This record gives sequence, C-alpha cells and structure tokens, in this order.
Amino acid sequence: MTDKKPSLTFIGGTGDLGSGLAWRFARAGYPVIIGSRAADKAEAAAAEMSRRGNLSVRGMANAEAAAAGDIVFMTVPFASHEGTLTPIRAAVQGKIFVDSTVPLIPPKVTRVQLPAAGCVAKQTQAFLGEGVRVVSAFQNVAAAHLQNEEAHLDDCDVLVSGNDVDARETIVRLAAEIGFKAWHAGPIENSAVAEALTSVLIFLNKRYGIAGAGIHVTGTPTKSE
Amino acid sequence: MTDKKPSLTFIGGTGDLGSGLAWRFARAGYPVIIGSRAADKAEAAAAEMSRRGNLSVRGMANAEAAAAGDIVFMTVPFASHEGTLTPIRAAVQGKIFVDSTVPLIPPKVTRVQLPAAGCVAKQTQAFLGEGVRVVSAFQNVAAAHLQNEEAHLDDCDVLVSGNDVDARETIVRLAAEIGFKAWHAGPIENSAVAEALTSVLIFLNKRYGIAGAGIHVTGTPTKSE
Repeated sequence: MTDKKPSLTFIGGTGDLGSGLAWRFARAGYPVIIGSRAADKAEAAAAEMSRRGNLSVRGMANAEAAAAGDIVFMTVPFASHEGTLTPIRAAVQGKIFVDSTVPLIPPKVTRVQLPAAGCVAKQTQAFLGEGVRVVSAFQNVAAAHLQNEEAHLDDCDVLVSGNDVDARETIVRLAAEIGFKAWHAGPIENSAVAEALTSVLIFLNKRYGIAGAGIHVTGTPTKSE
Repeated sequence: MTDKKPSLTFIGGTGDLGSGLAWRFARAGYPVIIGSRAADKAEAAAAEMSRRGNLSVRGMANAEAAAAGDIVFMTVPFASHEGTLTPIRAAVQGKIFVDSTVPLIPPKVTRVQLPAAGCVAKQTQAFLGEGVRVVSAFQNVAAAHLQNEEAHLDDCDVLVSGNDVDARETIVRLAAEIGFKAWHAGPIENSAVAEALTSVLIFLNKRYGIAGAGIHVTGTPTKSE
C-alpha cells in the first residue's frame, strides 16, 4: 500500500454492517464505494451518506463496485453469499477480499450452524481461487455501534484470518484506523471462530440481557505487533 | 443438587487439564476421583494429590471411576476421544458428562480443524445418547494456571454449552466455585466456538508472544444470571 489511501468497496453496502463500515472508513478519509444489487439503491445510499458527512461516497451495482475498489469488502446475509460472489468473481481477481459473512440460518440464529466445509470464508477462498487474497473479519461487530458517532468500537476485538499474511496485516491496520483492536488469528480455516461466535454472542445478548456482547482477547503480548 | 457436594470424576485425570481441574475442585472440598486407563497410574496420581493437599483423592481405572462419580469430566487428547468413551458409556448413563476435548490435530495445532459433525461435544452427545446430559466447558483454560496456587483463573472466561439447561447451570456454578467466570453459551452445537478458539489462542500465543491468551466476554448483563 502506498501513502495514497486505497479505495474501499462494500458489496452489500446498503445493509447494517456494510453501511456502518463504509461510513466509518469514509469518515477516516478513504475513498468509499457502496455496492448493491440495484445501482439506484446503491446510488441513493451513497448520496445519503455523502450528504450526512459532507463526503463524496459513490454508489454502483455490485459488479461495477467490485471493479472500482482497490480492496473489496462483502457484508451480505448468508443466504445471498454465493449468489453475490458469482457476478463479482472476475472483478476481484488480484485484490484483497474481506468476507464478513456469518452463517446464520434463521430462525435458529443462536445455534452455531457452520457449513460442511468448516467455515464460510474457506468456501469463499475456494470459490474465488488463489488469485484472490481472502481475509475474514468483522463478523462480531455490533453494526449499530458503527453508525453511532459517540460509540467506542473497542467493546469487541476483531479476529482477522486469512492465508496471506500481508493481506491480513493490511486489514488489521485498517480496522485499527477506525478504532478496533484487531488480531492476526491465523489461516482462513480459523474464521470458524468468528463465524460461530456470532451465534454465541446473540445467545448471550438474549440470555443475559446484554445490549451487544463481544469479546476481548486477554493476555500480554511480548512481541511487536 | 443437594447441600451435599457431588463427587466429581476426571477421566483422563492424570493429564495437565484433568489433574489441574481435579486439584482445584478437591481443594474446594469436592470428593474427587481420578480416572486413567491404568488403575495403578490413577492411584499414584491420586496419592500424590492427596499428599500435596492433605486430601483424600481416589484413583481408579476409567470405567470404575466413571461409575463412582456423580458428575463425570473428560479431558483426553482428541485422538483418544472415542476410544475413551466406549468403555465408560454404560457407567455415565443418567449423569452430567462434561466434555473438554479440543479437536487439535498435530502438527497443525494453530489451524482450526473441527470434525465433520461440527464439533466434538455434539459427537459425544450422539455417542452417549439422550440419557446422558453432555455439557461442553473448559477447553480454553490454561492448564498451567490450575496447578499454580497463586494464579488467578479470571484470565479466561468459560463458555458452557449443552442442551440441558439445568446441567449447564450446574457446571456454570461449579466453574465459579473455583474462580472462573462462566457463561451459558447455548446448545451443544455452540461448543464449536470453544473448541475452535483453542487453536486461535495457540496462534495468538505464538504470534504475539502471549503466555496464555484467553477471552473475556464484554457487555453488561441486565438480567439475573
């Protein structure tokens, strides 16, 4: 990455998590592109975000949005996962692709239901191929906090998994820029923890009446991060 | 549970985690039984623990140990999991059975490798049958801390999963008695989080030079626990 900030595309960027991340990164000075299935919906969301923050966020249909961004984030419901990946597969080759998909299967969203492959992000890496550096992150973030200017984002650490160490490092640093404590969490298979954890956090919210449970990693690092 | 403390059996109780838990519960006043494949090994470990703490810990071969305890804990390596369950299956019927097995597959212990069924504890419940109340807990505990009288056990919260709410509650309370913050984490499938998390914690220990990484659940409960 050069000194020039990379442009960031958010596929599914009109949803709660995607629009929240887009908003935070746009406020941090990154060129942001909102992607949605329908171009007009993406454009409307981008226009609204631009007005709200006096920014210039762009909106495009998913395939164009994926082509336009240097780094592509995807935040879509599990049911839309594969259907969303197919039309953007060509456009993300050579890029870092951040998958935040959580395999929630309603109505039992408090029950862990990982896919047979082990986790969604591993499936994504297999589907997009080795030409794409897939990174898993942001599954456990309370989306509501992202939209709230007053909210601190240090209530939940971000576990960053992926097979490419440099790509992981890029996302660890990006997460830190908007206020998250992020950790290298190992290879793409380790996304299973963050993906499964979301169901447990929803369970904890219900069982204990917590507004938005998260996790902190405990322990004292002795190596440079 | 009556006022009388239940007796606790630790299958695989000569290993690091099992002997550590056994030691802490024996010190807390629970009748403790150490189980091992060989009766003489179990007896030797129990005699050593009894001397060390001026306690009366018993040691037996696994099948007898499983029959003798009111609540049965199992802490064995993943490779020994099914082979250990088979001979104790009959003896644990009607009991609470706490499975702490982590599906680590050497040499890649920093890589999440959950079994095809989703998690080990779910396999255990299926294998033992509905007459056994399987609870998953203690996968993420640093075993070394259990043996150290000076160590606080609040560095890592305990996620307690299982389909029987009363059995979960029993284990949440037991964990609290030896100093852990334990949480109801949902049905047995949710054991996937604790099982997978161990690989991520080992990764964090290596990557960041942490002596024993753990997690804390964040957020403020508003319902009685």
